[in-house]
Amino acid sequence: MTDPTLDPALRSWVESANGHPDFPIQNLPLGVFSPPGGAPRAGVAIGEMVLDLAAAGLALPAPLNAFLAEGAAARRALRARVSALLAHGATPHPEWLHAQREVTLHLPAQIGDYTDFYAGIHHAVAAGKLFRPDNPLLPNYKHLPVGYHGRASSIVPSGAPVRRPNGQRAGAEGPSFGPAQRLDYELELGVFIGPGNALGEPIPIASAAAHIAGFCLLNDWSARDIQAWEYQPLGPFLGKSFATTISPWIVTPEALAPFRIPQAPRPEGDPRPLPYLWDEADQAAGALALELEVWLLTPGMRAAGLAPHRVAASDARHLYFTPAQMVAHHTSNGCNLRPGDLLGTGTISGPERAAYGSLLESTAGGREPLRLPGGETRAFLEDGDEVVLTARARREGFVPIGFGPCAGVVLPAA
Amino acid sequence: MTDPTLDPALRSWVESANGHPDFPIQNLPLGVFSPPGGAPRAGVAIGEMVLDLAAAGLALPAPLNAFLAEGAAARRALRARVSALLAHGATPHPEWLHAQREVTLHLPAQIGDYTDFYAGIHHAVAAGKLFRPDNPLLPNYKHLPVGYHGRASSIVPSGAPVRRPNGQRAGAEGPSFGPAQRLDYELELGVFIGPGNALGEPIPIASAAAHIAGFCLLNDWSARDIQAWEYQPLGPFLGKSFATTISPWIVTPEALAPFRIPQAPRPEGDPRPLPYLWDEADQAAGALALELEVWLLTPGMRAAGLAPHRVAASDARHLYFTPAQMVAHHTSNGCNLRPGDLLGTGTISGPERAAYGSLLESTAGGREPLRLPGGETRAFLEDGDEVVLTARARREGFVPIGFGPCAGVVLPAA
Repeated sequence: MTDPTLDPALRSWVESANGHPDFPIQNLPLGVFSPPGGAPRAGVAIGEMVLDLAAAGLALPAPLNAFLAEGAAARRALRARVSALLAHGATPHPEWLHAQREVTLHLPAQIGDYTDFYAGIHHAVAAGKLFRPDNPLLPNYKHLPVGYHGRASSIVPSGAPVRRPNGQRAGAEGPSFGPAQRLDYELELGVFIGPGNALGEPIPIASAAAHIAGFCLLNDWSARDIQAWEYQPLGPFLGKSFATTISPWIVTPEALAPFRIPQAPRPEGDPRPLPYLWDEADQAAGALALELEVWLLTPGMRAAGLAPHRVAASDARHLYFTPAQMVAHHTSNGCNLRPGDLLGTGTISGPERAAYGSLLESTAGGREPLRLPGGETRAFLEDGDEVVLTARARREGFVPIGFGPCAGVVLPAA
Repeated sequence: MTDPTLDPALRSWVESANGHPDFPIQNLPLGVFSPPGGAPRAGVAIGEMVLDLAAAGLALPAPLNAFLAEGAAARRALRARVSALLAHGATPHPEWLHAQREVTLHLPAQIGDYTDFYAGIHHAVAAGKLFRPDNPLLPNYKHLPVGYHGRASSIVPSGAPVRRPNGQRAGAEGPSFGPAQRLDYELELGVFIGPGNALGEPIPIASAAAHIAGFCLLNDWSARDIQAWEYQPLGPFLGKSFATTISPWIVTPEALAPFRIPQAPRPEGDPRPLPYLWDEADQAAGALALELEVWLLTPGMRAAGLAPHRVAASDARHLYFTPAQMVAHHTSNGCNLRPGDLLGTGTISGPERAAYGSLLESTAGGREPLRLPGGETRAFLEDGDEVVLTARARREGFVPIGFGPCAGVVLPAA
């Protein structure tokens, strides 16, 4: 135990933090919130509360971009201060706190560019089979983290409703326009960029981790019928750009340090990546042990008093490339990342159906609907359905931490 | 002649404006510049000069996003004021002016999101043949303006050098990493968004034009070898994201009003777009008569004292979809556009080789190199090559206007 802020014996005078599944004092994720009637400001989640950093004399800019740009040293210094201020034994300052349920949570950073990768190999195989039965995994897949530019403007924080998109879909008598019929979620991690790089100056794989400010959950809502018709040859566009939901707290590399694990060895016969994507330290500790879940609550279940139903349980270890590899690849052509930019990992599915991170996979393209408590079924999402993603890191000898929910309710099409 | 600012008899006390091929007083495009040692500020190009709007008592924010958000009424009011201040007969104020060659030109807006379309049908056919010989134009092409999200961070103003990207390319013995060997330009128009739309609220085709703040030239630099290996299934990524160059002046819809033409009728047998993409007024006057050219100057030509060589002459009328159709389609799923967002039209090629807007097309994928004055040839771009795009609008009875150059020199790979 080199970092005292991770000491499992550490408790907080914020009582709800002690034993909290997501936000014990060992987590201390960063976000931006508005108290009732107040302006947006930087905060730290602690139990059921938010610490107003300015009230505690630790004001940060909101959104957090300029702070994220400062990198690990600034994050660590802040973390040490906040940990000391919130620790049991420090003078309690309840006036620094707001109840999370009473505040509005915003995006933590102004996201200049959003890039979505495709690094969940089980998803790439399962989804690839549906779009390209003969050719699910394309020849490039194992050589580079395939990715594409996403839409930054329509990224919303957890809790924002998501309107079902209208769009153009193929049909036997030609394309038609109307509400998407095959609306889906995708279970992903988001990666926030800290310090950026200048245009033309790639980030080497060995220093890529230093450019990562933290992690969140990301629901890459997808309209499969729109996507299937539009996506060739230039990739997903309107089938994705109507909304992307993220959990609003940036969980830092410092909080996640105990949960670093080796990247899973590549199966026998898989190619070793080229040197610009290969770093022994990254392979040794660049992956994350994070349990990831998807929960679904339909209006029918809500009316019947039923609890959300877990429709998928996966794990971040199923990523075929590490976040550092994504950063190195992204900048290998000189492309500049800016503080606050967001990367999505791609859908993180496990190898078996119960771990599939999208309905496209878990219902076999809608052919085998999910059965839900109360007797309903779902091939794809219906209006009023709520999707909640969760993440939890556990390791023997450490206090588990979570990300908080990444939730959205589907509204009817306009 | 309803708009007096377009009167062909109108002349300016800025002598270089009278007869200027790009920036006569009938143009008055908006930009952001820094005078030597000064901070960025808003300006208007006039002849060889830039009018400092603040000096003239007409300060605008720089970047221009908040002004673009105000829409046509604000643009028209500014245009009338600037036209009156710069007209022959008004009191000359040379102290309001800076020589363009002495200032630094910046991006005119902070570009939140950049979307690149593919609406040049001759390009789509010619390029499609090279990537997919059996299937150049995919089934969706004529039904919707195919597009994808581009990278906003690496958009640079004319004059910024462009570093040749390194990247991963396929090879007989597996992929390798190194400098792109097939570096190309793409001749496009850029479309700046003015007033935005709220997430979830599409912009109908009939009001789409009101959301366009103006136009620029756009060079969608492309590394064909990187692109060919990476682009399936999610589209172009690092083959494009190393740089996109735009001309730094926003040429307004008001200045381009005389050069509006009907959208070319679709060839017999082509489908009529669905109603959300069809507006009679847009079909009647939504296209632009704009001559577009690509010029190339190699280090060898420069050393020999040769002038840039025109390698392509095309026209904006070759776009298969109008800018308004792009806006309507982009927002049809509820995706929000923000003021200052940029759309690229896609490469605007004509039907014959002399009008091809990329080397991929005009050299048949590199197999038939261009012959240049002085005896050099080019299959793709070499280090030190300078590419300059130009645009000029002409119509009988009106003063022609241009966009200014969209130029970049290729630097060697890092």
